[in-house]
Amino acid sequence: MISVALDAMGGDNAPEEIVRGAIKAAKTGQFKIALVGDPNILEGLLSKEQATGLPIQVVASEGVIFEGESPIESLKSKPRASVSVCIGLLRHKKVDGVITMGSTGGAMASSVFQLGLIDGVERPAIGGEIIGFSPRTMLLDLGSNVDCRPAHMLNFAVMGSVFANARWSIGNPTVGILSIGAESGKGNKLVKETIAKFEEFSQINFIGNVEPNELLNTPANVVVCDGFVGNVILKLTEGLGIAVCDYIQDHYSSMVDEKTLSMIKEDVFQRTNVVETFGGGPILGVKGLVVVGHGKAQASAVANAFGTVKWMVESKYTDKLETELAKVSK
Amino acid sequence: MISVALDAMGGDNAPEEIVRGAIKAAKTGQFKIALVGDPNILEGLLSKEQATGLPIQVVASEGVIFEGESPIESLKSKPRASVSVCIGLLRHKKVDGVITMGSTGGAMASSVFQLGLIDGVERPAIGGEIIGFSPRTMLLDLGSNVDCRPAHMLNFAVMGSVFANARWSIGNPTVGILSIGAESGKGNKLVKETIAKFEEFSQINFIGNVEPNELLNTPANVVVCDGFVGNVILKLTEGLGIAVCDYIQDHYSSMVDEKTLSMIKEDVFQRTNVVETFGGGPILGVKGLVVVGHGKAQASAVANAFGTVKWMVESKYTDKLETELAKVSK
Repeated sequence: MISVALDAMGGDNAPEEIVRGAIKAAKTGQFKIALVGDPNILEGLLSKEQATGLPIQVVASEGVIFEGESPIESLKSKPRASVSVCIGLLRHKKVDGVITMGSTGGAMASSVFQLGLIDGVERPAIGGEIIGFSPRTMLLDLGSNVDCRPAHMLNFAVMGSVFANARWSIGNPTVGILSIGAESGKGNKLVKETIAKFEEFSQINFIGNVEPNELLNTPANVVVCDGFVGNVILKLTEGLGIAVCDYIQDHYSSMVDEKTLSMIKEDVFQRTNVVETFGGGPILGVKGLVVVGHGKAQASAVANAFGTVKWMVESKYTDKLETELAKVSK
Repeated sequence: MISVALDAMGGDNAPEEIVRGAIKAAKTGQFKIALVGDPNILEGLLSKEQATGLPIQVVASEGVIFEGESPIESLKSKPRASVSVCIGLLRHKKVDGVITMGSTGGAMASSVFQLGLIDGVERPAIGGEIIGFSPRTMLLDLGSNVDCRPAHMLNFAVMGSVFANARWSIGNPTVGILSIGAESGKGNKLVKETIAKFEEFSQINFIGNVEPNELLNTPANVVVCDGFVGNVILKLTEGLGIAVCDYIQDHYSSMVDEKTLSMIKEDVFQRTNVVETFGGGPILGVKGLVVVGHGKAQASAVANAFGTVKWMVESKYTDKLETELAKVSK
């Protein structure tokens, strides 16, 4: 069984939906869960949900790091915050991985301080296959690094290649760079300088520029971009998907039968709001496995995040990343 | 009647679709058209399409500036290229505006050289209401300026405000800045510096950050961003719209009747591929009215671009922009 520390207090729907997600995951028989938060609240919820007998153990924490707070100051003022206690369990090898639906900044800062960065990583990143129409293309960084330099983009390319290899068993994953023209001369300063950098490193299977519309159908397994741009892509995709679903519901409910309409909406939503489906993505580049999910996550998304922990543990992602980063750091 | 010079040789479907678009526009009785290109080809197409009697006059040019060519070198090597001849007609006040579906870079370079920039403009921009779910929100820059400085963003805010005022008769248009968090502290270096700049100028009705998902439903009439980010938003929106249409076609054609399916697809397409619908957007900041459309434009998009010329001429957009820019340039 894989053991996971779950931050029961982080996220918009904590702790109720987080606890329900934990129960769902525990019932698969694949996970042993340390449920971290306020013991009184959590024990109450567990007994209400009739979770006795499941491999869920409550671990006490004090306080939560909220979205929008300064992560560094919060780490100091709330040393026993739920996410920090989770990551402490990982540091002491009590668990294989951590899941939180709370503040990404808080999870990242706590991971960097407690676990440290893998040698050769300048900044950790967040990435994943966020466009459901291209299920074998992962994009990074998705928002943790704005104002990147080419060295960061090189980090992202390596992290992404190891991700694609571990996730889809692709031998030599193709890497593209997000730009606003197909020709290599097109793009901003960062893109042009990054291309020059990529061409220095033969272990990156660089295939050139990927335009934003090509993200829907690209031969690149990994697409690298600045975290500002990546976050724009993530949030715009989610927003457009929801707008299309709402539009179809509002204008076609009298013309299409309810069941078919629901199926169309569900298909569009799943392909555009992928983080909801997968439950979350890992923080790439830290010495340990920490999965950060959507603040809005419901129980099913929380349960799905356990799947991400599972494939990353089983594929030994972190170990492989250390090996690959050593090659470009020399 | 509004007189327009139309670049018959620019765009993927030139000259056939451009000529058909010209005929469509001429038949409305609102436009007099100078059709610029190779006279032999154009006369042949016009007679084939039975366009005699319409207010379309062929004007000779030599060569075309293609997408991907260096605009500045092409202007030198092809001084009589179709887009340059069009803009020359505008410079000599033979026409009220220019429409081209050819190279944006070529049209922009030719406009800057022949018409010049309005006082106070550092760089011209491209903008428009590109997300059909928010028909009263215009985004700029859409791709002509990458690596912007706050002074450029201030230009965009003024250009956008005048656009929103002229287009929708909004008295004091609201201006937002695209960022990846709702709080003003969130964003990259450019966003943070731009916010400080906007707050210096009371004539900009600045309402704060707009997140990418909020573009679908924002109180901002104008959203300002770097051209790299704007082009990502434009192309991703187009690509996602097409992917959704294709998906619905592939998976639901046996479950939804053909007519309803076509309507759903058409609705989604129109709301995500808006440039196709409007035919194109103006180059903002140059001394004259030049509308640049989609390279892939078909006849209907070409004809629609005449509508853009019409409202811009009638609202005296360029004059108003000069007045407003003078206020922030002091």
